Amino acid sequence: MKIKVVKNILAANDQLALDNRKRFDADHTFVINVMSSPGAGKTSLLAKTISPLKEKVKIGVIEGDIQGDNDARLLGELGIPVVQFNTGGACHLDANMIAKCRADLPAELDLLFIENVGNLVCPAEFNLGEHCKVMLTSTPEGLDKIDKYPLMFMESQVVIVNKIDLVPYVDFDVPDFLEKLKKINPTANAFPLSCKTGEGLSPWCDWLKSTVDFL
Amino acid sequence: MKIKVVKNILAANDQLALDNRKRFDADHTFVINVMSSPGAGKTSLLAKTISPLKEKVKIGVIEGDIQGDNDARLLGELGIPVVQFNTGGACHLDANMIAKCRADLPAELDLLFIENVGNLVCPAEFNLGEHCKVMLTSTPEGLDKIDKYPLMFMESQVVIVNKIDLVPYVDFDVPDFLEKLKKINPTANAFPLSCKTGEGLSPWCDWLKSTVDFL
Repeated sequence: MKIKVVKNILAANDQLALDNRKRFDADHTFVINVMSSPGAGKTSLLAKTISPLKEKVKIGVIEGDIQGDNDARLLGELGIPVVQFNTGGACHLDANMIAKCRADLPAELDLLFIENVGNLVCPAEFNLGEHCKVMLTSTPEGLDKIDKYPLMFMESQVVIVNKIDLVPYVDFDVPDFLEKLKKINPTANAFPLSCKTGEGLSPWCDWLKSTVDFL
Repeated sequence: MKIKVVKNILAANDQLALDNRKRFDADHTFVINVMSSPGAGKTSLLAKTISPLKEKVKIGVIEGDIQGDNDARLLGELGIPVVQFNTGGACHLDANMIAKCRADLPAELDLLFIENVGNLVCPAEFNLGEHCKVMLTSTPEGLDKIDKYPLMFMESQVVIVNKIDLVPYVDFDVPDFLEKLKKINPTANAFPLSCKTGEGLSPWCDWLKSTVDFL
């Protein structure tokens, strides 16, 4: 019985995600869903990615949080439209929330970033209608996150390893991680980088530009 | 309707948690529920805490994970009984899971640690019947975790700040954090420490010994 309810919820979400996707495609908006643990650096990544692009293309952000608007205010300072969505307790965004938020953003957007709630479990199970899932992990979290939360890493087209500036001080070997990742998701595009120092940001931004052809 | 279902689930869980608590008290077992983000260092904290105590008192661990048994194997090497519980997707442990796991541990235990699933949202909402909630945060996660996940910090009697050895390399001011914590949870016992270097472990272990009077 419990399983049936969960399945119904996920099926209903998938239908709404498809509706979102149709709207995104009709609007020519490329949508990226960014997921990570709390504190891995989603907002920093968005700030560093959006800054060099915002003069060329129209960018919007949907900022998902349990509560508060710290990150939305920070990204709003970049001068782009940001919609804050507080889940009020739910540990993930779902397609219905995204549909509501999209209506509050300007109609014409080239690129829409969705910053999911910091959580490595449920965000992977709820499609939002996005074109691309970006999974962000960070070196202090350790190498074993792939073993413990495989769905997140399997579902994502892009895996970013943030905080490589901390590698000398934590137990995290980047080549080991990339090897593990290759086993579970051989086609993932992996980008080790540091939002703090800027190291490694260029390959990620270049990939984004080559994937979203209008950039 | 949705809210009602959630309330019913939480009410059912609270009843089972009370049943667990009665059993723990009848068995004279002190139970600690450890919660954190993925990779904050729950397993390291347990290993460092259990090692000096295991010869004096009978200690057991319930190890909660989405999947896998890495941490259970690591703690099992300490020579104490460990039960692995894989939630198979659920982002938190609940009281019913704990009741099942308790039956698989030796009847006589002085101290039982429960390592919850790495998640800052749902674990705070599901009581397990524990005597004490320990919230573990770590310096690379940043100062804003209290603002974003206040329930975890409000519900916990103990808040541990791990990875203070990384303070020189990350944006985290320990006094600022402790001040924020004091506002949201004035009675929390706070312990900044490093499981890696051992700095700050003594005050936490001393607190544990003074609280659990048989230690």
